[in-house]
Amino acid sequence: MQHIFSTDLTSGLYTDMYQLSMAHSHFNYNRQNEQVVFDYFFRKQPYSGGFTILSGLGELLPLLQEFKFSDRDIDWLHKNGFRSDFLDFLYGFRFKGTVHSMREGEIVFPQEPLVRVQGNIVEAQLAETVLLNYLNFQSLVATKAARIKLVARGAALSEFGLRRAQGLGGMFASRAAFTGGFTSTSNVLAASIYDMPAVGTMAHAYIQSYDDELEAFRSFANVNPEGCVLLVDTYDTLKIGVPNAITVAKEMEQKGHKLMGIRLDSGDLAYLSKQARQMLDAAGLNYVKIVASNQLDEHIIKSLFEQGAPIDIFGVGTNLATGKPDAALDGVYKLSMANGEPRLKLSENIKKTTLPGLKQVYRYSDDKGSFVADAVALESDAVPTTILHPYEPDKSMSLEGYSSEALLQLVMQNGEPTNAPTPVTDVAAYATERLSKLTDEYKRFENPHIYKVGVSKQLLDLRTELRSKYKKESL
Amino acid sequence: MQHIFSTDLTSGLYTDMYQLSMAHSHFNYNRQNEQVVFDYFFRKQPYSGGFTILSGLGELLPLLQEFKFSDRDIDWLHKNGFRSDFLDFLYGFRFKGTVHSMREGEIVFPQEPLVRVQGNIVEAQLAETVLLNYLNFQSLVATKAARIKLVARGAALSEFGLRRAQGLGGMFASRAAFTGGFTSTSNVLAASIYDMPAVGTMAHAYIQSYDDELEAFRSFANVNPEGCVLLVDTYDTLKIGVPNAITVAKEMEQKGHKLMGIRLDSGDLAYLSKQARQMLDAAGLNYVKIVASNQLDEHIIKSLFEQGAPIDIFGVGTNLATGKPDAALDGVYKLSMANGEPRLKLSENIKKTTLPGLKQVYRYSDDKGSFVADAVALESDAVPTTILHPYEPDKSMSLEGYSSEALLQLVMQNGEPTNAPTPVTDVAAYATERLSKLTDEYKRFENPHIYKVGVSKQLLDLRTELRSKYKKESL
Repeated sequence: MQHIFSTDLTSGLYTDMYQLSMAHSHFNYNRQNEQVVFDYFFRKQPYSGGFTILSGLGELLPLLQEFKFSDRDIDWLHKNGFRSDFLDFLYGFRFKGTVHSMREGEIVFPQEPLVRVQGNIVEAQLAETVLLNYLNFQSLVATKAARIKLVARGAALSEFGLRRAQGLGGMFASRAAFTGGFTSTSNVLAASIYDMPAVGTMAHAYIQSYDDELEAFRSFANVNPEGCVLLVDTYDTLKIGVPNAITVAKEMEQKGHKLMGIRLDSGDLAYLSKQARQMLDAAGLNYVKIVASNQLDEHIIKSLFEQGAPIDIFGVGTNLATGKPDAALDGVYKLSMANGEPRLKLSENIKKTTLPGLKQVYRYSDDKGSFVADAVALESDAVPTTILHPYEPDKSMSLEGYSSEALLQLVMQNGEPTNAPTPVTDVAAYATERLSKLTDEYKRFENPHIYKVGVSKQLLDLRTELRSKYKKESL
Repeated sequence: MQHIFSTDLTSGLYTDMYQLSMAHSHFNYNRQNEQVVFDYFFRKQPYSGGFTILSGLGELLPLLQEFKFSDRDIDWLHKNGFRSDFLDFLYGFRFKGTVHSMREGEIVFPQEPLVRVQGNIVEAQLAETVLLNYLNFQSLVATKAARIKLVARGAALSEFGLRRAQGLGGMFASRAAFTGGFTSTSNVLAASIYDMPAVGTMAHAYIQSYDDELEAFRSFANVNPEGCVLLVDTYDTLKIGVPNAITVAKEMEQKGHKLMGIRLDSGDLAYLSKQARQMLDAAGLNYVKIVASNQLDEHIIKSLFEQGAPIDIFGVGTNLATGKPDAALDGVYKLSMANGEPRLKLSENIKKTTLPGLKQVYRYSDDKGSFVADAVALESDAVPTTILHPYEPDKSMSLEGYSSEALLQLVMQNGEPTNAPTPVTDVAAYATERLSKLTDEYKRFENPHIYKVGVSKQLLDLRTELRSKYKKESL
């Protein structure tokens, strides 16, 4: 029996079965070289919020470059009904497509293409599942992290979610939290591969393994004088834990060290943090920080500060690492061109009808640098100076006088990344910079303003033309 | 820069930083051989339901046997402040603990120990994060799968969640869904490593890549005459899709093949499935199955059957693979013994005070084989004939006359698994068998009956004694 930890994760089998069934069929008709374009986009902002942060490209692009079908994979497919000539083709298969994408860390909105994959019909389909799997989840978590940062008033933010994360999804959760603005993680393996700070000092079990808390604190501080955080809620936070921490902090001072912090992991964090702060300050320990953890999210952290809680560092676990309450971003990957012709997925629901053709996305900014609107246009269009509402074409907006930038950039050409991978610290910095250009009304939690994403007239006309053509044909 | 797909997942760094900080401290005081016991248990049933299915041991135990610190891991720790003598110790480290566990697939309840880890304080702590990460998530998904199976009236159930799963968490999601009663998955890599059936035929993009739907159906059926399922909602389900599928099914009959099914992936599944069934039957195609997908969960499937929807196969994605709306099982890992002495984690909230000592769990069944109650007892106790309520000790229940079985069994001794790994089909069969012994009132979705988990008098007395001892000491 095989296990996940002994499995080659560059396997082309990390996909949905139908991608292989479809490829099998295309190969049978010698269609494997037909050129197509797919767009990745999502339809609904997570958390009922006003923005999403695109995350995950730093893992996706290298994987697209690497994934392949090993001997083992081919054997399995052979046993499962795939024909030998197709398997010979798959054995030599590598992704040689061309990818345009928004930058990782970009602030993104529903309906606009975030990633555009051009290639033959087989490679473009084989990229679908892994693209969705990598980007949907990391964007979900990065967005949660950014929402938490928005209300954290400069407090340090540490991701503590591995134990409640969705299995190995915890690795991407830690990475994505960092790209969204967290400053460290408890997940050591993620820290080591993505070059992020790892943090964490003691659990309740450490204290319980000693006969008393003071002895446990003392022993720990002795071995870990730097960055030492003492967990003060094992027995009684204010009667025992904080006084013991103060005792140890004073002993550390005598040895020339400074206690970094105390951690509250249960109870009323607003009340306990205020009391603990007073006790620490009264003991001359105003440099000792207060760390809070336990079922936190953006709403609780906002509320804690509104109550005046003097918390310096937050450890956020489950709600961040699983993107609760949303669990998934609804990103999809839809065909927009085939054999040089624009294509459309019709739907009874006009909002689910896709945008055809080879497209670019432009972002407009005012003279203060704030984002005003995005335009989805055909790549052959000039940069639009007017955008139309995608579903109510009598609504339009002039973009005269605003500066514009093209958001979809070439990131992979014929299967080769065009740039070196971006370190996660740079992704995080970019997300922060871009989010600062989105005004507050788009960032509030309750009924945020809806950022305008319009389409060019040419694109709307193309969609209208194709819709009527398909409808006629299908009668 | 490293990537997840090139990372050794047996790395000991797949843990929370504080496990290593604590181990560092214990090593410093030469406490690394002190013997401890930890219990894994959870506090709250997911989905407001009446049961949970334990899942994930088939991946956890081999990982405990394999995890280690490589040269790379040691280098990283060295650069991050760990002392050389401790790193020498870690370099040779292997988990040599002893583990008792309930069987994978067992029906389990809050507060009872599901897994018991005995070992030295370092190995027992280093097992914590990965144990929680593996078991919490797989149990969450297996439970969701079992809930769906309960209302599926024998329909085949396929897991389709990879594209919306939480990154590589999708691998465990597919495995866990199968252990909970699903019969196949779209995730080919999971199917190949866990030996599960993989299914999937075509996406909308396949149909769009042809000039018309009929041509697309015909081409696909020609290459895939066995197990062919045609997706009928690309243009208009009842006006175009189903008639085209009927045409192709009739053509297949002439070649001696049978169309397996049609798939509905949008719209009103109750209405569409009834209409499609009538159309298929009227064409003499009563053997063609109806497959439904699109945002399904246990509540929607229950409702579809209540409306008389003639659906034969369900494809369930996001809600299953992410355990929505819960996102995480709240399982914890708590110290219950240290150096041969029972230990307790006190809490202001008595329900969060842990159960001390080396424990066993007994399950009682009536003469029909139905489960009656579970007892948590000290291993040194005789099998209890009376259990007490863990927080209201004036409430008791007699178990005289019921048969009992001990649920915690030795699964790993001194770091070696005691049995060969259990195939996922056997885990699934065990879960089904055990769930059949839980009567319906525990399995309903609304306000399920709460299954009784009591404690032995000796265990309750021990907890009371330790609580008063700790409280006295802490004054």
